[in-house]
Amino acid sequence: MRRFPAHPFEPLNDGDKLKEECGIFGVIGLTDAANFVALGLHALQHRGQEAGGIVTYEPETGFHSERRFGYVRDTFTSAGVMKLLPGSLGIGHVRYSTAGSKGAAQIRDVQPFFGEFAIGGCAIAHNGNLTNAARLRKDLIARGAIFQSSSDSECIIHLMARSLQKTQAERLKDALRLVEGAFSVIAMTRTKLMGVRDALGVRPLVIGRLGEGWVLASETCALDIIGAEFIREVEPGEMVVIENGQVTSSRPFAPAKSRSCIFEQVYFSRPDSIVGGRSVYETRRQIGVELAREAPVEADLVCPVPDSGTPAAIGYAAESGIPFGLGITRNQYMGRTFIEPSEQIRNMGVRLKLNVNRALIRGKRVILVDDSVVRGTTSRKIKDMILEAGAAEVHFRIASPPTAWPCFYGVDTPERSKLLAATMTEDEMRDWIGVDSLKFISLDGLYRAAGEDAGRDPASPRYCDACFSGDYPVIPADKMDEGFVMKAAE
Amino acid sequence: MRRFPAHPFEPLNDGDKLKEECGIFGVIGLTDAANFVALGLHALQHRGQEAGGIVTYEPETGFHSERRFGYVRDTFTSAGVMKLLPGSLGIGHVRYSTAGSKGAAQIRDVQPFFGEFAIGGCAIAHNGNLTNAARLRKDLIARGAIFQSSSDSECIIHLMARSLQKTQAERLKDALRLVEGAFSVIAMTRTKLMGVRDALGVRPLVIGRLGEGWVLASETCALDIIGAEFIREVEPGEMVVIENGQVTSSRPFAPAKSRSCIFEQVYFSRPDSIVGGRSVYETRRQIGVELAREAPVEADLVCPVPDSGTPAAIGYAAESGIPFGLGITRNQYMGRTFIEPSEQIRNMGVRLKLNVNRALIRGKRVILVDDSVVRGTTSRKIKDMILEAGAAEVHFRIASPPTAWPCFYGVDTPERSKLLAATMTEDEMRDWIGVDSLKFISLDGLYRAAGEDAGRDPASPRYCDACFSGDYPVIPADKMDEGFVMKAAE
Amino acid sequence: MRRFPAHPFEPLNDGDKLKEECGIFGVIGLTDAANFVALGLHALQHRGQEAGGIVTYEPETGFHSERRFGYVRDTFTSAGVMKLLPGSLGIGHVRYSTAGSKGAAQIRDVQPFFGEFAIGGCAIAHNGNLTNAARLRKDLIARGAIFQSSSDSECIIHLMARSLQKTQAERLKDALRLVEGAFSVIAMTRTKLMGVRDALGVRPLVIGRLGEGWVLASETCALDIIGAEFIREVEPGEMVVIENGQVTSSRPFAPAKSRSCIFEQVYFSRPDSIVGGRSVYETRRQIGVELAREAPVEADLVCPVPDSGTPAAIGYAAESGIPFGLGITRNQYMGRTFIEPSEQIRNMGVRLKLNVNRALIRGKRVILVDDSVVRGTTSRKIKDMILEAGAAEVHFRIASPPTAWPCFYGVDTPERSKLLAATMTEDEMRDWIGVDSLKFISLDGLYRAAGEDAGRDPASPRYCDACFSGDYPVIPADKMDEGFVMKAAE
Amino acid sequence: MRRFPAHPFEPLNDGDKLKEECGIFGVIGLTDAANFVALGLHALQHRGQEAGGIVTYEPETGFHSERRFGYVRDTFTSAGVMKLLPGSLGIGHVRYSTAGSKGAAQIRDVQPFFGEFAIGGCAIAHNGNLTNAARLRKDLIARGAIFQSSSDSECIIHLMARSLQKTQAERLKDALRLVEGAFSVIAMTRTKLMGVRDALGVRPLVIGRLGEGWVLASETCALDIIGAEFIREVEPGEMVVIENGQVTSSRPFAPAKSRSCIFEQVYFSRPDSIVGGRSVYETRRQIGVELAREAPVEADLVCPVPDSGTPAAIGYAAESGIPFGLGITRNQYMGRTFIEPSEQIRNMGVRLKLNVNRALIRGKRVILVDDSVVRGTTSRKIKDMILEAGAAEVHFRIASPPTAWPCFYGVDTPERSKLLAATMTEDEMRDWIGVDSLKFISLDGLYRAAGEDAGRDPASPRYCDACFSGDYPVIPADKMDEGFVMKAAE
Repeated sequence: MRRFPAHPFEPLNDGDKLKEECGIFGVIGLTDAANFVALGLHALQHRGQEAGGIVTYEPETGFHSERRFGYVRDTFTSAGVMKLLPGSLGIGHVRYSTAGSKGAAQIRDVQPFFGEFAIGGCAIAHNGNLTNAARLRKDLIARGAIFQSSSDSECIIHLMARSLQKTQAERLKDALRLVEGAFSVIAMTRTKLMGVRDALGVRPLVIGRLGEGWVLASETCALDIIGAEFIREVEPGEMVVIENGQVTSSRPFAPAKSRSCIFEQVYFSRPDSIVGGRSVYETRRQIGVELAREAPVEADLVCPVPDSGTPAAIGYAAESGIPFGLGITRNQYMGRTFIEPSEQIRNMGVRLKLNVNRALIRGKRVILVDDSVVRGTTSRKIKDMILEAGAAEVHFRIASPPTAWPCFYGVDTPERSKLLAATMTEDEMRDWIGVDSLKFISLDGLYRAAGEDAGRDPASPRYCDACFSGDYPVIPADKMDEGFVMKAAE
Repeated sequence: MRRFPAHPFEPLNDGDKLKEECGIFGVIGLTDAANFVALGLHALQHRGQEAGGIVTYEPETGFHSERRFGYVRDTFTSAGVMKLLPGSLGIGHVRYSTAGSKGAAQIRDVQPFFGEFAIGGCAIAHNGNLTNAARLRKDLIARGAIFQSSSDSECIIHLMARSLQKTQAERLKDALRLVEGAFSVIAMTRTKLMGVRDALGVRPLVIGRLGEGWVLASETCALDIIGAEFIREVEPGEMVVIENGQVTSSRPFAPAKSRSCIFEQVYFSRPDSIVGGRSVYETRRQIGVELAREAPVEADLVCPVPDSGTPAAIGYAAESGIPFGLGITRNQYMGRTFIEPSEQIRNMGVRLKLNVNRALIRGKRVILVDDSVVRGTTSRKIKDMILEAGAAEVHFRIASPPTAWPCFYGVDTPERSKLLAATMTEDEMRDWIGVDSLKFISLDGLYRAAGEDAGRDPASPRYCDACFSGDYPVIPADKMDEGFVMKAAE
Repeated sequence: MRRFPAHPFEPLNDGDKLKEECGIFGVIGLTDAANFVALGLHALQHRGQEAGGIVTYEPETGFHSERRFGYVRDTFTSAGVMKLLPGSLGIGHVRYSTAGSKGAAQIRDVQPFFGEFAIGGCAIAHNGNLTNAARLRKDLIARGAIFQSSSDSECIIHLMARSLQKTQAERLKDALRLVEGAFSVIAMTRTKLMGVRDALGVRPLVIGRLGEGWVLASETCALDIIGAEFIREVEPGEMVVIENGQVTSSRPFAPAKSRSCIFEQVYFSRPDSIVGGRSVYETRRQIGVELAREAPVEADLVCPVPDSGTPAAIGYAAESGIPFGLGITRNQYMGRTFIEPSEQIRNMGVRLKLNVNRALIRGKRVILVDDSVVRGTTSRKIKDMILEAGAAEVHFRIASPPTAWPCFYGVDTPERSKLLAATMTEDEMRDWIGVDSLKFISLDGLYRAAGEDAGRDPASPRYCDACFSGDYPVIPADKMDEGFVMKAAE
Repeated sequence: MRRFPAHPFEPLNDGDKLKEECGIFGVIGLTDAANFVALGLHALQHRGQEAGGIVTYEPETGFHSERRFGYVRDTFTSAGVMKLLPGSLGIGHVRYSTAGSKGAAQIRDVQPFFGEFAIGGCAIAHNGNLTNAARLRKDLIARGAIFQSSSDSECIIHLMARSLQKTQAERLKDALRLVEGAFSVIAMTRTKLMGVRDALGVRPLVIGRLGEGWVLASETCALDIIGAEFIREVEPGEMVVIENGQVTSSRPFAPAKSRSCIFEQVYFSRPDSIVGGRSVYETRRQIGVELAREAPVEADLVCPVPDSGTPAAIGYAAESGIPFGLGITRNQYMGRTFIEPSEQIRNMGVRLKLNVNRALIRGKRVILVDDSVVRGTTSRKIKDMILEAGAAEVHFRIASPPTAWPCFYGVDTPERSKLLAATMTEDEMRDWIGVDSLKFISLDGLYRAAGEDAGRDPASPRYCDACFSGDYPVIPADKMDEGFVMKAAE
């Protein structure tokens, strides 16, 4: 008899996608703020699925904080938990993983973080990654600071605690001037909601309005869910302070040309969001159009790898004239469990999540459009499924350039040696995956799809594209302490 | 300050979809059968999300039964629960709701049902609905039977218990000859796996093979997930008994022309399944093609209502030449909670689940392709969202004929007076929903898409289409006792 | 380094006590009956700690049933569960173990059991054990009955279902006339609360009154907790039916001389209960007095084995003039867990639950008073602890005669070969336990303490004392089918 | 119909007992240390029932910390949690309540507290209360410390973090020299287990040995449970450091005459513990003897209020010659729930926990022996129960002097105005409770029972008896800041 290993529902979690690490959200001036925060975090769940937290403030009872592992829909929806979060001012955070922490995820690493200072309490939610956090942490501990988490973001709270400034806003500026790296931060005190983006604006942050209330969020889709109006982005290097219904803006950092993350356009952000003034869906569809021009091939069917490859596949099909069809079905009841996957099950992973529509695929020359290739393991499994279903040819078209460098600005990337594109040429990758052809969009093509008609300006690129180019706009100090070698130094 | 009601995550559960009530699955001859059953049920989760159950048999410890509320991925994946289900023979069931039960769902209504008879134990899993269950139940109780559930399916077990036959297979035949209605049944004893379909074959059931083991399942997608080979359908009116690796077939019922459910093609079955010998995806795509021919309109964008409208939208776009685009984004983290929705939240429901891609929709004449209209309330909300996003025109195209009659064969339908099409003409519906045009595919068009090139033969239709036509192939006895009036009698 | 095995909190659960299997309780005419039932079951928790269940009836919504594993204080106290049990009529049950069921405890074995008959629903709660249940079960299954539990008590429901009588009360009589063994039963229909004791009255059952409501309970301590007045016992062989505030009495069974269980006096019942017209505390104290007369010894301290040995120890000390002292402290936070105890931990068991007061014991000649000796393993461990603490002598005095025969009337007893007194003389037991002296009270002494000044009348004993005497007042039919040999036949 | 409020199981939790706030325990040199810590905390559960925590260290994986609400038996017994706590060095803490925290209990207030310093990690468990914690906290926050809890004990960690000393032991000394009040502290680093008592030795701490391992614990009963040998007390003002199997002792504080808490003898400590060289049971029994001499009365029964009044009642009965009997039965299944008690239920509270043995009490003149009177509300309810059961007379004898002053050294006391003895004379209390007589033991009598044959020496009392005498050995600085007035200043 055939034997099958226990626990068959391990998700496809083999590290073969880059993972955004955080979504952040805050509201001020809305009764029962926690409800809005929960809704906003739900809309941002794609930015972090491991855990979430909400902090609110209510004048009589003070600050309230609840942190939970799991999806917002499961953890912040009961009447019981909502009763623990009173007040009309609140912020929240969803996260993916624990930068710097080895071992099991710990609730103490879940944001927002809170500090009680001599001038009152302050909570912060941070999206991004600080590239000098290890150095700062060491210094702070030597001076008597006690860290409660393994998160780089906690440095911000300790730097605020030590600041000699008399207001929370000034203390936050003090703190953020000392950190390096990528950060979009939402903070709250007893009366203020504050939002800041680093000078390069790597991570997104937008301002919305709902009635008399104000909202800050990672993406516009989180404004849509609560019916808030999208006002504008917090600009790179800008700090906004919202109090008593008024928004005041300042620019605490040295001016710099913005370098927002281009992967937000390719994969992280939700397709119905507006990021950096552009429709993410439109960018992705346009990537497909560019890909069809750069890498045409004769075929019978353009088939997206669900779900993130779909807009590019639509663009490819429209531009090429080849029929578009759903050759791969995603099981919409896939969950997220923590059971340790055995090797055998891990290999079955794709089947649990994806199934091929055999009747559609059989005998056809199929173009598969996917968003990216990281380790390449998933691509191989998908190719196997498609061939087993009887496809005549399989052609991969990838809606991003080869991912050859790790991100140090808030994205979970495997170390460089695990990135397929760091060790192989395009042809080697094609052979390793085992397909008839494999083509990535060019960096220039990607820039064109993202609105830069002239392609990438190497002297002053509009986006941070370090994961493709190795051109890091901020020196990754901690990582270099650990031995990372920059491209120029190779 | 704007106030928002608590518990914001109620799902869009306003009864505006017909709901399949069950998926069934069984294996014999595979070590750790419960793992395969869990995988199969996971693949069939779209057929029933409320609860699931698994029964296994292991010679030393006997029969084992576990029943749980919730998704299979959450309830049948821990090592703990799997250890409770040893053996190489097992069956399982996922269900949507409790036919006949008022009030809260009860675990005792969750299948498989089990009976210990004088000749040994037997467990059954039933997909469908018995139209004379109330009458049978009354008779059985009068003769001393004690029912443990409110389910119609339990009658089968009691009828088996009273049979004078000497084998379980013969007892099952005895029992099924006394029931009326639609049923696909999987049953198991200590040594046998059995599968039966009613004479009309209303509900599906297929046979698969994996190594030395055999599999029975509602749909082929549940064979795919475990890598089993699709052998054939259990035919309408057929009973198969699998024991010691041998399959034997018999025909216990009076012969009848088959009338399989056409709504399985339209909506219930998964698009990657083969049902009645046809690719469900292909039928749906073809419905879109037929719709484009029957009900063309000048427009700028063909947009599916996610997710079930997508194949028909692809077909409509291909046939009409109008661009296909994803104008509505579904939140993939929507859960399923049981918190009672307040009226206000219910009205917000669509926004929690769906969001409009404003950048794509603005200024466009949009064709929305949806699978069906039941009460029409969802259609109104979607129209509101699309218009609010700035669409120039909204045209609904529905991939099924008007749903004007309730189903009594295993589908959860509102009572007739709640069905929009039972009380309005197409034009009235268009005005009530508030769109520029509304068109349903014709019944003949649907049959053509489903492979009947000549359309529907009124004298001997190939499918059960009672929900559209009011032509019920089995008299709904219990419902008529309750006052239901058939079409002919109106 | 010394290694200690994991999971250190296994309770002292080595089967070295006889265990009552059930407590039952019912009320009629009290709003929110479930609250009263929960309180009553809490007061009866000593009669069954594994699981509990409550059934209520409310005219609009019908019967409601909730069953849970664990203590009443943990399972039937939340507002949530109480809301599920509306109505002013309800019954409940706490249980210890599953007679006849091998393997893990199952919720389906938890009472009350419920049956829907042609004449309406009925729920029953049964304390005791039916000695011909296996025979009845086989017959009922052969006639088509489907059993849902492994409990002997379910027979009663099936016998009622098959009765041709027109009222529930008459059906209950029909059923109980067919069963043999010991039973106190509380039953409820939509309008009636009923209580019955078998003709011998082996298990207790009392009637109480609270305002306009009526109460039935296993013991009077369950009346005290809700402030109900103790009216009288349900007499052996009596059936009471309470409806519309009226109590009617009948005697459905052939008359017989009562033989109530004497172990209720010795150990099962709570000391503050009145059982069979006698104060349980007073009986136990008097047992100590008799013991001091029958088995005096020179010593410095009379020390109870907590907690059930305390009243007898007080009596022994008072009669002997030897000081009474608490030489053994019981940890009041001992819980009840289900983790499988390892052998090593099991041996540490006593220390987890009990600790010796070394300062009090050291150098003293100690008389330990315990309620009974079953396997003797606990007695050995206690002796070890006392000696290790420095006692000069250890004398055991046991407040019951040697337990040499299993009980088949609702008490969980090891099989005969595991009973120490079935295989050893008193002297052999003394040596095996390893104490300076060991004395049991005589059967006559026990009867004297229980109010029979003349001791036991062998021709017509007042109590059922089968566990001491082997004189079984009801033939244990099922057990004899399994091979049990009665004393006379030895 | 009589209506009964929902949720009937609220415990008798009306603040009518003083509550110890902590028990602490630590081991070094024992494989699987967490198992021993869990056992030790279980034995100390009477010192704190709200929550518990364990920290262990294992060289490869570092420090591990788990904190839970609830009893140790429920929270630290699963294999799952024990696997999270590897290593042969560990400390633990059980706690009752949150000094200084208003609102719901928070897991962040549960000890042990942990700090990562520049010289490595350190965890501490603190029993007692710091009387200048509020002042220290304010200073520390002003210097940039971020507090994670509302506990006074966290100051110790922050003071250690700021110390310039090079070893953890020296840092701990530095920190403890700055705090005032009562403290017994157990601390651990990667290699050391440390124990310290304040100069007065208010709270207990003992040293034990098990094989090659060493143990520190609040009481000797926690040594007994794991079979460890009691070596000696940590002396007042002593610090012990255990490393590599060696114990080194030092005296970091200014010398002072010891003043251990006399209430540990009266009520807090377990009767089977040796505290300050005395058997707690013997002291309590002797209190009963002294009470019988000081406050004799003619009566028929000496009855303890369970469970803490029992040893004194035994002493009273022995000295007076009046029979001892258990007139009040405690329900051993009373749990501890957090449901907010309604007023009505609270009044029923005593009945849920205690029941009177009517048969024993009726017609008798009863002497009730209780350990203390705090608010007096429980005493009134018990008197009501006893009278309702038919007692002829009720005489209260209290095994401690009138509690007239709050404790600021680690005991939860109501504010002074809520203490019955702070506002009434003994006669007024007698009338308010409504008994025939009420007598407290004298302070001199208590000292005699506690081994001071000459009674209390007012110039230099052996014990801290501030709760009785108002003589506070340490100035309660924070409380005086809040307005508390010392006796001398009245």
